[in-house]
Amino acid sequence: MRVTDPGRGWSDGLLEAGLGSERAATAMSWTTRIARMLDVEVALARVQQRRGLITADQAEAIADGCDPDRVDLTGLAAEAATSASPVIALLAQVRPLLSEDARAVLHLGATSQDIVDSATMLQLRDAFDVLEGDLLEIAARCAVLADEHRGTVMPGRTLKQQAVPITFGLVAARWLAAIDRRVSHLRLSRPRVLVVQFGGAAGTLGSFPGQGPELVADLAAELGLDSPELPWHAERDRIVEVVGVLAGINTVVSKQARDIVDLSATEVGEVITVPRNGPGSSAMPHKGRNPVDAMAARAAARLSAGELSVLMSAAGEHEHERAAGAWQAEWVALPSAVVRVAGAVERLSAAIEVLQVDGERGRRNLTANLGLTSSEHLAGALAGELGRPAAQALVGELAARALQEHRALGDVAAADEKVLALLSAGQVREVCDPGATLGNVDAFIDRAIHAHRTLVSDNEVDA
Amino acid sequence: MRVTDPGRGWSDGLLEAGLGSERAATAMSWTTRIARMLDVEVALARVQQRRGLITADQAEAIADGCDPDRVDLTGLAAEAATSASPVIALLAQVRPLLSEDARAVLHLGATSQDIVDSATMLQLRDAFDVLEGDLLEIAARCAVLADEHRGTVMPGRTLKQQAVPITFGLVAARWLAAIDRRVSHLRLSRPRVLVVQFGGAAGTLGSFPGQGPELVADLAAELGLDSPELPWHAERDRIVEVVGVLAGINTVVSKQARDIVDLSATEVGEVITVPRNGPGSSAMPHKGRNPVDAMAARAAARLSAGELSVLMSAAGEHEHERAAGAWQAEWVALPSAVVRVAGAVERLSAAIEVLQVDGERGRRNLTANLGLTSSEHLAGALAGELGRPAAQALVGELAARALQEHRALGDVAAADEKVLALLSAGQVREVCDPGATLGNVDAFIDRAIHAHRTLVSDNEVDA
Amino acid sequence: MRVTDPGRGWSDGLLEAGLGSERAATAMSWTTRIARMLDVEVALARVQQRRGLITADQAEAIADGCDPDRVDLTGLAAEAATSASPVIALLAQVRPLLSEDARAVLHLGATSQDIVDSATMLQLRDAFDVLEGDLLEIAARCAVLADEHRGTVMPGRTLKQQAVPITFGLVAARWLAAIDRRVSHLRLSRPRVLVVQFGGAAGTLGSFPGQGPELVADLAAELGLDSPELPWHAERDRIVEVVGVLAGINTVVSKQARDIVDLSATEVGEVITVPRNGPGSSAMPHKGRNPVDAMAARAAARLSAGELSVLMSAAGEHEHERAAGAWQAEWVALPSAVVRVAGAVERLSAAIEVLQVDGERGRRNLTANLGLTSSEHLAGALAGELGRPAAQALVGELAARALQEHRALGDVAAADEKVLALLSAGQVREVCDPGATLGNVDAFIDRAIHAHRTLVSDNEVDA
Amino acid sequence: MRVTDPGRGWSDGLLEAGLGSERAATAMSWTTRIARMLDVEVALARVQQRRGLITADQAEAIADGCDPDRVDLTGLAAEAATSASPVIALLAQVRPLLSEDARAVLHLGATSQDIVDSATMLQLRDAFDVLEGDLLEIAARCAVLADEHRGTVMPGRTLKQQAVPITFGLVAARWLAAIDRRVSHLRLSRPRVLVVQFGGAAGTLGSFPGQGPELVADLAAELGLDSPELPWHAERDRIVEVVGVLAGINTVVSKQARDIVDLSATEVGEVITVPRNGPGSSAMPHKGRNPVDAMAARAAARLSAGELSVLMSAAGEHEHERAAGAWQAEWVALPSAVVRVAGAVERLSAAIEVLQVDGERGRRNLTANLGLTSSEHLAGALAGELGRPAAQALVGELAARALQEHRALGDVAAADEKVLALLSAGQVREVCDPGATLGNVDAFIDRAIHAHRTLVSDNEVDA
Repeated sequence: MRVTDPGRGWSDGLLEAGLGSERAATAMSWTTRIARMLDVEVALARVQQRRGLITADQAEAIADGCDPDRVDLTGLAAEAATSASPVIALLAQVRPLLSEDARAVLHLGATSQDIVDSATMLQLRDAFDVLEGDLLEIAARCAVLADEHRGTVMPGRTLKQQAVPITFGLVAARWLAAIDRRVSHLRLSRPRVLVVQFGGAAGTLGSFPGQGPELVADLAAELGLDSPELPWHAERDRIVEVVGVLAGINTVVSKQARDIVDLSATEVGEVITVPRNGPGSSAMPHKGRNPVDAMAARAAARLSAGELSVLMSAAGEHEHERAAGAWQAEWVALPSAVVRVAGAVERLSAAIEVLQVDGERGRRNLTANLGLTSSEHLAGALAGELGRPAAQALVGELAARALQEHRALGDVAAADEKVLALLSAGQVREVCDPGATLGNVDAFIDRAIHAHRTLVSDNEVDA
Repeated sequence: MRVTDPGRGWSDGLLEAGLGSERAATAMSWTTRIARMLDVEVALARVQQRRGLITADQAEAIADGCDPDRVDLTGLAAEAATSASPVIALLAQVRPLLSEDARAVLHLGATSQDIVDSATMLQLRDAFDVLEGDLLEIAARCAVLADEHRGTVMPGRTLKQQAVPITFGLVAARWLAAIDRRVSHLRLSRPRVLVVQFGGAAGTLGSFPGQGPELVADLAAELGLDSPELPWHAERDRIVEVVGVLAGINTVVSKQARDIVDLSATEVGEVITVPRNGPGSSAMPHKGRNPVDAMAARAAARLSAGELSVLMSAAGEHEHERAAGAWQAEWVALPSAVVRVAGAVERLSAAIEVLQVDGERGRRNLTANLGLTSSEHLAGALAGELGRPAAQALVGELAARALQEHRALGDVAAADEKVLALLSAGQVREVCDPGATLGNVDAFIDRAIHAHRTLVSDNEVDA
Repeated sequence: MRVTDPGRGWSDGLLEAGLGSERAATAMSWTTRIARMLDVEVALARVQQRRGLITADQAEAIADGCDPDRVDLTGLAAEAATSASPVIALLAQVRPLLSEDARAVLHLGATSQDIVDSATMLQLRDAFDVLEGDLLEIAARCAVLADEHRGTVMPGRTLKQQAVPITFGLVAARWLAAIDRRVSHLRLSRPRVLVVQFGGAAGTLGSFPGQGPELVADLAAELGLDSPELPWHAERDRIVEVVGVLAGINTVVSKQARDIVDLSATEVGEVITVPRNGPGSSAMPHKGRNPVDAMAARAAARLSAGELSVLMSAAGEHEHERAAGAWQAEWVALPSAVVRVAGAVERLSAAIEVLQVDGERGRRNLTANLGLTSSEHLAGALAGELGRPAAQALVGELAARALQEHRALGDVAAADEKVLALLSAGQVREVCDPGATLGNVDAFIDRAIHAHRTLVSDNEVDA
Repeated sequence: MRVTDPGRGWSDGLLEAGLGSERAATAMSWTTRIARMLDVEVALARVQQRRGLITADQAEAIADGCDPDRVDLTGLAAEAATSASPVIALLAQVRPLLSEDARAVLHLGATSQDIVDSATMLQLRDAFDVLEGDLLEIAARCAVLADEHRGTVMPGRTLKQQAVPITFGLVAARWLAAIDRRVSHLRLSRPRVLVVQFGGAAGTLGSFPGQGPELVADLAAELGLDSPELPWHAERDRIVEVVGVLAGINTVVSKQARDIVDLSATEVGEVITVPRNGPGSSAMPHKGRNPVDAMAARAAARLSAGELSVLMSAAGEHEHERAAGAWQAEWVALPSAVVRVAGAVERLSAAIEVLQVDGERGRRNLTANLGLTSSEHLAGALAGELGRPAAQALVGELAARALQEHRALGDVAAADEKVLALLSAGQVREVCDPGATLGNVDAFIDRAIHAHRTLVSDNEVDA
């Protein structure tokens, strides 16, 4: 087979690409990780030079030698599999490029995990940017949908049964608020999780007695990361905080994608997501409405859940000062989880971008169910005179009759003598109109939109 | 069999009690949940009375009728299994206790999920208190251990191989910092997750047009919870934030318990955890050192991981406005997860309370390994004259000889002519002393203890 | 609160009972486990007596003393939490009941794990019976449904979009075949997993040099279990085979319950599961159709998945000859998983028992979608003359027109000149009848029913 | 960066290659899947020709056009992401290569899932061969180790505490039996899970009324797969059986790799796994013993667990006749799980191949623990005269004294008057020799080896 674009960053599983985010993959790929590892080595040298631990010439030479373009990835991979450390393999490629003088101080006082963990944090920072940007795009679209469809009536459904009427705007507002919560969670976590790693062989920075904390802080500053209290090679709870952030996003994306799939079912049809590339097969026009992007979003979220569970279960199993297996699993599971979650976000974004609401269909679905969703409201209207229990009993009768005779509840009620003793036929119809029972839909939508604006402007203030 | 104490809140699996926290179980039990559900119904009535929606008499009657002591749990359970709602079953027991007048407005405008979710949040709030208290106790003990054992030398180990010397104080300081991070995470999450639920049948608060947001805020205030932007019946990302908090605690507890198990292995013996009830079997004194509490902590953490994964996977699968299965799974998985995690914390607390450090054993283990962990430091000392590569090659030779002749590296080095040309025998011994290579152990320990004091005093300011 | 029935075997979480099987809980409870542990001690004594290792009096005394009625569960639980072994705690209660002579040989040569593991296998055997019986009941009902509804037309759906017509009988036949596969898997696993454990402290049966394998075989025979090649204290792959069996059942139950929930959605309505206790709330007749049992089945299956993942992840983490945490987690996770899976099966059984098929609704749903599911068949009918591509293009046009004009595809086609040039209007209608495209539905249903009969009769031959 | 070998089948994550099996990746890659999909299309045509459904020319043309060498993978991937079906994208590339006549019958009566599922089964069949072969190699090596080291004494350990002596041969025999059980499980599952998929759009084979079951059987035979009772597009319990097989292998590999890591810890040292490429860093000879392969085996197994949990949780969530997300997740999770599990097996194989046993170290570790593991045996020897309780009390005293005086238990006992009243000093020493308490080690080892030979010869008979 021909592969016309072999240079994919993250997965040659080209066919899996639809379930991952290309941009997140660029941030989290091994290629990028190697480049970031070189960045960490260079930053380390700079910091050490500033504190007089190495010379300017040595630092310069290291900065020159740590050149991603000169790395042979294939050789590195083979070597890394043997030594179980990509750092040893990488340094073996860098060292010949250095003067003997510089070679002696390359990677000075550091351990492999310092380099890999710090590089991973740099990658995560970029991936967080991708995620936040994409989530805010979805949120913006949800805000528009919430506003536009604040009056688009449809059945609210519990246990897949029609309950009482809501509007599509309310659904979109709930999506919006959920996405916004995920953005704020992601922001909150940044200073907590994006910290440098620097501890040397067993976390003592034994090569720099008396200068450890300062060097850690310097390196963090140089890389734009935060500085931890002490090295955390085998304490991976920060990684689990990342898992928490990703799992939260996953939840929201899965729910929203699921709503789209369910609402676009042939029998529901309140939502249509026309596939990105046009109207689908011409011979099977009824299949042109497959919710392809929402489906892919769910598949990607599902996949990422596996990696998130690996990260959670591995995090507490790091032996002593460095793990024999659990850390290595993290190398693979973390990038993959990020790419999948970001992929789910991307596909949801695609789905939401083209999402159309069939404004008539919601009302039609209520009607097809004989307007029974107005039972509660009708009982409420009758309760003033009858008392609640009697009102409920009466509506129960009416509803049973509606089902039996396959007539609308409103029609049955408007022709019932007991009802007409209390309400006019016109009043009955008004009460039974789905639009009459929407409660606080507008207010809730407004609150969600308002909170979203605050979230967005917070960010602009920060930036 | 006789059960002399049948009144256990959470699990009649008496034999599982060692893997759960009794206090968390009290907070999270179904018995407590029912009581909290009644609290929510009462708070709802009070709030509605204040806004003139019901009368003072009605509110009073509801408060009287919602009496946990009058609930028949067995009957409730049977009924709840049929209707799939503990609220319907509960109200059926409360209603007969009310005047007809009050009966009409009991649970006014609410849906089952409003009551269950709000009650769950009240339970979680109490369980968070238990967790935070217990974590801070462990942290306090870790702070003492870190300080006392800042100079207690032992091997640092990577991949289960001795690497370079550290001290037990550093291990305890890492534990301390990790626990403290979990406490701060827990605190941070409180206002984000502990929010009221109130939306009515499908989240519109249809019974209170124009008053929804205010009623939600009132109810939140009455219950001491925070107020959400809008109802969140099917948006369970907040639950996943709770999962994130619990998973983080789990990670830290598992790691610490694992360290204790590993360090108390017969062949390592640097740590001893005498079981709580004395010296163990007199006939098998060598078995008296089973790390029972640490083991139980790990088992409990492991168990909770199952429930956390259920919560994560269910959270994104809530259909439309209320789920058909995913929410019901949460009823069970959330309390159980909390109780297990809190149980893991309790057992770790028990382990850490009695933990003794065998101060001599760490040094003996280094010696038994021929002091080879000083290789790196020795090479460093020789590098000044020889250059790093030659120094490393020389130390390599010495180490190989030490292994072959089963002599200490320091002794081999102190008798080697090439070494003696550069360092005196006394200098060699000094360099090869494990205490000479501890780097920044003291500074890192100080930082962790300092951060802990800040965390504790933050809390006191709050309280 | 009052608990009028405190004697529940497995969970005092009365309110969780709806998600677990009472009968499986009886088999798997701690109370039963203690009783089975006593059975194992007694069997051990009998076997040892037969080989002359202990006297008949001693064996007799042990059989007398190992009396479940004399066990104090509460005390046992407290003690077990401390020693991390229910066996030590149990024997401490049994020993005072024995003569000094018998006391000396109680539990002779055994270790705690021998007793717990063997007892667990006895419990599993009973639970497997419960599972198999319940699965076969569901299968029998599916066989009836498959046969009765072999001609009940409904839309086949892919990605929640109507695809081509099928019948409900085919759905039931697929359910049937899947359940039957799970029964055969369960049967296949019995001799593989239901084996005795007997190895002594570290798996050498050190107290019985030269007699080990024979004693193991004797004990297995006495308990009606199979005999392993050698002790398997820390090799838990058999437990993972049990997980595989349970996970397979879970899968099938979840799928079937999900189908029921989806097919009983208000907008689909092809299936109705009237709740067990009558018609639901009289005031909300439209809510009387909540698929409560199917929902509970899904919730129970979801919960069990957590425990299954705990079992899978713990199984490979047993240290050396006995685990420090992983085995203890299994004590809780295995019974709980079995009870949940069996609970899911029970609730599905309840759902399927009352399941009614709305035979008209399927056709109506096809009609409401304008009969577009016949596109493929219509194109096939036209392809003979036009060639497939042209036929597909023509049907594409017709379908687009049908959608635009909201008319049935068959009507549009029967009025189209290009079509009428090839087929008569009558032929068009015949081709577009959903019943005309059912292919091999009957044959597939027959095959599933036939295979089921074979499975059932296999069992009768065995029994 | 340069990638000198871009043509990797499965993962461009070159650096993850150490955690996956190259051979399993070849079997399970997308490239191979596409090729197998073409095989299925060709087989379909052949079978249809034989039944006269298409002409020999058409079948021939299809066989010619379905040429993997002419597939453009990059284009296919892009298209597949849009349509969510690799089959539609693939056929779009094949169709232009066919005569118009053949084009009309390409993929006749089939649906995408028929092709993908059948192709996946062909891939799995090859991957099972890889797994079985590798497992049998490990087993063969374990059999040799078990035999060679049947007398190599070492401490048996429970809860990481020395318990009673065992031999390394017993450990290897337990490994052997566990591997063999996995091989037999894998073999057992083949006819159950490796079945063809062929059902058309919604499982009715609507294009072939009256010929469905026969066509399914023909296609199965043509592909060398088994034939199912009926199409199983949305019933994925067979996939969960595959999960069970893989999870069982994972368990055994994880346990064995964990034993190797634990036994090669510096302080235990009973096992050495020299890295594959020589003695490690010359400067850090004490780090040359990192158990790299065992560590990688554990990391790979850990990673696969994530995918296995995805497969398990997705399997019951297939909607109606085809899933909207769950099936697509399977496309990725199944191959990845297989590759990881096979990778874990490979790395374990590498570890076990070079594994050396330090025959002296086991005895030294027992001695370092003062021979306390003989307590039980010594008590047994004294029990004949003293009665068991008095004997245990006496040994308890002796052991306490041994610990206090740091002398061997045997020495303390051989100098104790109470002991010498019953046994001679020589007898005491004999009793306290670890080799004296090995029980049935030889017999258990023989049984495991014998069972292994049977398993191997079963296979030869089959082949």
